[in-house]
This record gives sequence, C-alpha cells and structure tokens, in this order.
Amino acid sequence: MEYRRIKDLQDKAGEEVHSHNNDEESLRGSKSDSISTGSGELSKWKRKSIVTLALTVLTSSQAILIVWSKRAGKYEYSVTTANFLVEALKCAFSLAALARIWRNEGVTDDNRLSTTLDEVSVYPIPAALYLIKNLLQYYIFAYVDAPGYQILKNFNIISTGVLYRIILKKKLSEIQWAAFVLLCAGCTTAQLNPSSDHVLQTPFQGWLMAIVMALLSGFAGVYTEAIIKKRPSRNINVQNFWLYVFGMVFNAIAILVQDFDAVANKGFFHGYSLITVLMILNHALSGIAVSMVMKYADNIVKVYATSVAMLLTAIVSVFLFGFHLSLAFFLGSIVVSVSIYLHSVGKVQRQQ
Amino acid sequence: MEYRRIKDLQDKAGEEVHSHNNDEESLRGSKSDSISTGSGELSKWKRKSIVTLALTVLTSSQAILIVWSKRAGKYEYSVTTANFLVEALKCAFSLAALARIWRNEGVTDDNRLSTTLDEVSVYPIPAALYLIKNLLQYYIFAYVDAPGYQILKNFNIISTGVLYRIILKKKLSEIQWAAFVLLCAGCTTAQLNPSSDHVLQTPFQGWLMAIVMALLSGFAGVYTEAIIKKRPSRNINVQNFWLYVFGMVFNAIAILVQDFDAVANKGFFHGYSLITVLMILNHALSGIAVSMVMKYADNIVKVYATSVAMLLTAIVSVFLFGFHLSLAFFLGSIVVSVSIYLHSVGKVQRQQ
Repeated sequence: MEYRRIKDLQDKAGEEVHSHNNDEESLRGSKSDSISTGSGELSKWKRKSIVTLALTVLTSSQAILIVWSKRAGKYEYSVTTANFLVEALKCAFSLAALARIWRNEGVTDDNRLSTTLDEVSVYPIPAALYLIKNLLQYYIFAYVDAPGYQILKNFNIISTGVLYRIILKKKLSEIQWAAFVLLCAGCTTAQLNPSSDHVLQTPFQGWLMAIVMALLSGFAGVYTEAIIKKRPSRNINVQNFWLYVFGMVFNAIAILVQDFDAVANKGFFHGYSLITVLMILNHALSGIAVSMVMKYADNIVKVYATSVAMLLTAIVSVFLFGFHLSLAFFLGSIVVSVSIYLHSVGKVQRQQ
Repeated sequence: MEYRRIKDLQDKAGEEVHSHNNDEESLRGSKSDSISTGSGELSKWKRKSIVTLALTVLTSSQAILIVWSKRAGKYEYSVTTANFLVEALKCAFSLAALARIWRNEGVTDDNRLSTTLDEVSVYPIPAALYLIKNLLQYYIFAYVDAPGYQILKNFNIISTGVLYRIILKKKLSEIQWAAFVLLCAGCTTAQLNPSSDHVLQTPFQGWLMAIVMALLSGFAGVYTEAIIKKRPSRNINVQNFWLYVFGMVFNAIAILVQDFDAVANKGFFHGYSLITVLMILNHALSGIAVSMVMKYADNIVKVYATSVAMLLTAIVSVFLFGFHLSLAFFLGSIVVSVSIYLHSVGKVQRQQ
C-alpha cells in the first residue's frame, strides 16, 4: 500500500538519531543527499513532536474541564448536541485553515476540497464506528459502574496495538509489545482506587461489551490512520474536512435518536454554560490534534500521548482540586514511564 | 577479581541458547571444543535452574507457613532461638553433605574444612550485617505498620541491583535496569491493599530507616555472593559451613541481648510447636538454596526467584486459605512477568 512506504520513511525520521545502519541510507538515495534529507527529517520530527505535545496538553485539559464541569453540577445539556457542535467546529477550523492555504499557495490537486467517490467513500467508516461505540456505551453501564468502565477502557491500548499490527501491517518489536502491555497495566494501576476490585465481578456480558467497544474504538483509530496515510500528499485539512462532515452527519442522527424530545421542547442550546462552550472548543481542538498525530505520527504515539495526558491530569488535579495521589498512581506512573522508555529503545532494536 | 571471569563464563551458559555471536566462541577455545563445552554449559544451566526453582518453591512455602502459624495463634516462642536453630541446622546440613563428599571423593584442597585466616576473615561480615538489619527492624515499627513495612521492603530490589553493579562490578544492560525498576514496581503493586496509601504518610525517619535496611540487606546479599564467587573451585558446603558458623555466633548474641530472660525462665524451646519446627526446617533449606543460587547464579536471579515466590504464595493462598486476589495483584503480576521477559531479552542485548 502507498502509505506504507511513506510511513517507513517517517519512522526513520524518529530513528535517525539512534541509527548508524548504513544499509538504510541507500533507501533514501545517495549519501550526498543525506544532509538535506537530515534537515527534512528534523522538521518532520519537530512537527511530529509539536502535534504530539498539543494532543497531550489538550487531552489532559479536557479531563480537567470534565472534572470542573462535574463540580459545577451535573450535565444539563444534551451531550449529542455538544458532540455535533464539536464536529461542526472542527469542520469550520479545517475550512479556515484551507482558506488561508488557498490564499497563500493557490488551489492545487492536493488541497482542493472537491474529491472523488473513491477517495470519499471510506471517510464515513470511522464516524460510523465511533457512533456504534458511543451507543454501546449506554448499555455497558447495565453491567459495570463508571469507575469500573474507566478501568476496562484500558483494553483500548491493547486493541489499538493489535489492530495497528493487523490492519496497517506495521511491526512492533518484541520490546515494543512488552512496552505496550506495560502501558496498559501501568495506566490501569494508576487509576486503581479502593473500590476498583468491583470490576473483577463484572459479568461476562460486561467483559464482552468492553472488549467489543475496545475493538471498535481501536479499529476506528487505526482505520482513520489508514485513510489519512493512504494519500500522504493530500492536505490534512481536506482530509479532516471530509472526516468531520461525516462526523456531523452521524452525530445529527444521534441527536434524532437519543435527544429529539429534549431538543424539540427545550431547544438545541438548552443548558449550555461557559464551561460547556469551553469543553466543546477543547474537544474540537483535541480532535484536530488527533488527526494531525495520525498524519504525522501514528496510533501508537496517540495512545502514549493520551496515557501521559491521563497522568498529567491527575497531577494537575492535585493543585487545582486538592486531589490526593495514591501509591497506586505513583507505581502506575513508574510503569508508564518505563514503557515509554522501552518503546523508544525497542524502535532501535527493530532496526538491527 | 578472580570471581569476575568465572561469572562471565557462567553468564554465557545462560545466554548460549540465544546467542549466535561467533566472536564469543573464541573466548571459550577453538570451535572443535564447542560441543563438549556446550554440554558443560548445559549442565551448569541445569544446576542453575534447579537451585533457582528450589529457592522459589522454598521461599513460597515459607510465606505459607508464616500465614499458617499466624492463623494458629501468635508467636509463643522466642524468634531469636528459632533463628539460632536455623543457622545450626544449616551448619549440620553442610557438614552432612561434606561427610558424603569426603567419603566419595576423599579430602582435597577444595573440600577440606580447615581454612586460612585470609579466607575466613570475611565470612562474619554478612552475618553481622543481617544482625544489624534485624535489630533495626524492631525500631522501624515505631514509624510504619507491618503492611507498610512489607511495601517498603521492596526497596531491597533496587538496592540489590545498585550494589550488585557497584560491588561486583557487573553490568546490567539498560533493558535489564528497566526490568529491575519494573520488578520493584510490580511487586509493590501486587501487594497493594486498600490501606496501602498509609505508607505515603510515613515520616522521614521511617523512609530513611527503610532505605538503610534495604542497603544493609542488599549489601549482605551482594557481599555473600562476592565471598562465595571469590573462590569458585572451593566446595560450596565448606563456604556455607563457615557462613553459618558465624550466623550461629551472631544469633547467639541476639538471644543474649533480646530474649535472655525468656530463655532463662521458660527454657530454650518454650512455645515450640510442630509448625515452629517446620518453619525452622524450611528456613534452613531456603537459606541453603540462597547460598546455592549465589554460587551458581547471582543476586539478580535470587531477587527474581523471591519475587516470583511472593506471587506464587498469593495464588496458593487462594486455594489454601480462601484468599481473594485483587485487581492490583493481577496488574502487579503482569508487570513482574514482563520484567522477567525483559531481563532475559536484555541479556542478549548486552552481548551485542
């Protein structure tokens, strides 16, 4: 597949610093090119780092906004309308970015908005998968409570790794697999609280649904990466625009199915507050950051970024809300840190 | 140092299976020798595995005996007399083993009991270190409760790794260090219970004592390995005999200091029961297994064996005592398992 080769080159960007394997050089042309390629790799590495950092900070502040909004009182607004607005806002941001690009660079094949059926036909799939997952979310709470669900959600980490391997056909080294198992165990450990053991009593249906949801979520993520990487030269804002258009469509369906009465009787914006607006803005920006990470890095980086964000949220909550950090949190953080280290070491090993 | 070279050869025994690095072959003579050397390595590997397995099973059953004895009621006997008997029993076992060897092989320079001041002068040091550590143990409970102390004892893992590196000058690869940090975090996670967070409120003196005790314990272990490995051809039973003789001496001092009144008034064997006898027997056998692991493997293997024993104890306790395993236990076990895997992968990496 087309995006495979590009990804391999991108991988080398990150590994360049460690690698002294001259066999690899030949793939990138003669050695005289290597200096200019090197600075290209550096700017790719910078871009990758910036989008990853943005995703981490946005995801972390997202969780803090949720805690803040819960403290301010329960949700009074329809969640489906908020989700719809998030998609609409992302569409608007993508169009604004495109408008600037068109002004500066003119309209080209890569940044024109018009598309072919062949290109656009796959864009609804991730949005549809997320919709199914979100609908399932309402049913899983019949089997498991909210803190238990937070624990089970860590299956996402493993499912993303497995589907990344199967669908994108990209290999993780043995050490990177070990690191991934540790990331899952470390995140779960960091979230442990005295009542976490309840989750072991989850009935079979609960486990099954959690696994199905993890697979849906992992599949949606990996499939989005496949779509975005399939056309590497295509402008990311165009790709985002089409992804988000279908996000709007599917969220409109969700409004009709779940919140039609509330919206019809109390209005679309009923119960919105300043914090609701901030959350919508934050979700929109994080959504764009996720797409950027898919384009310039991959799902594995995304999983690490969101895991680190989870830890950051807890640490920031100590200062903002006077939360106490548990021993389990420290232990989980150590395991996650070692996992990150092993992931980068494992990259080098894979090349040898 | 002399024992360094021997250890390097032993290490290769374990790595032989994985390594295809031909440069290493030359160190062990010409290639025509490699078949006979190979079978020698195999028998060394077998011996290493057997002593490690023995240590794991004995340590695990030791903890089960402790739980059993606690269920049967509190300790009625003087712990110092039991410790003394453990040392005496180990001495007796070593002498019995030696008697058999003398009968079969005759008395040689390597298995004669008589020794030089130069050889024997270092043997009291580990026994003295353990004595100091055991005396400190009485004072640390002023700052931390028993379950908290169990948690803090995991510092031993890190201190053993650090002192192993410093004193025996043996390198662990970066991945093996990562594995060691994970072993410590995983063991602690597996031992978490709802009240574990108390340990975070341990005052500074408590932390300090825990660290000093971990250093004493780690130093005693690593120093024992240094003594035993310094004379690789010396029979292990002779080395054990001298270690245990000083163990008896120092434990006799402990009886005088701590339990003189109880022993004088109620007798040496007051409060002994069948389970006390079983515990003494078990401690004696585990002690010998530890020495064997020091001789044929190392402190790192010892730490892994005792960590796995801790997990085994918990699993066996489910069946024996109806204990429940916590989610933290499962997560800790996963982390410990990954750590063991990484330790063996890291060995290969170190050779490259």
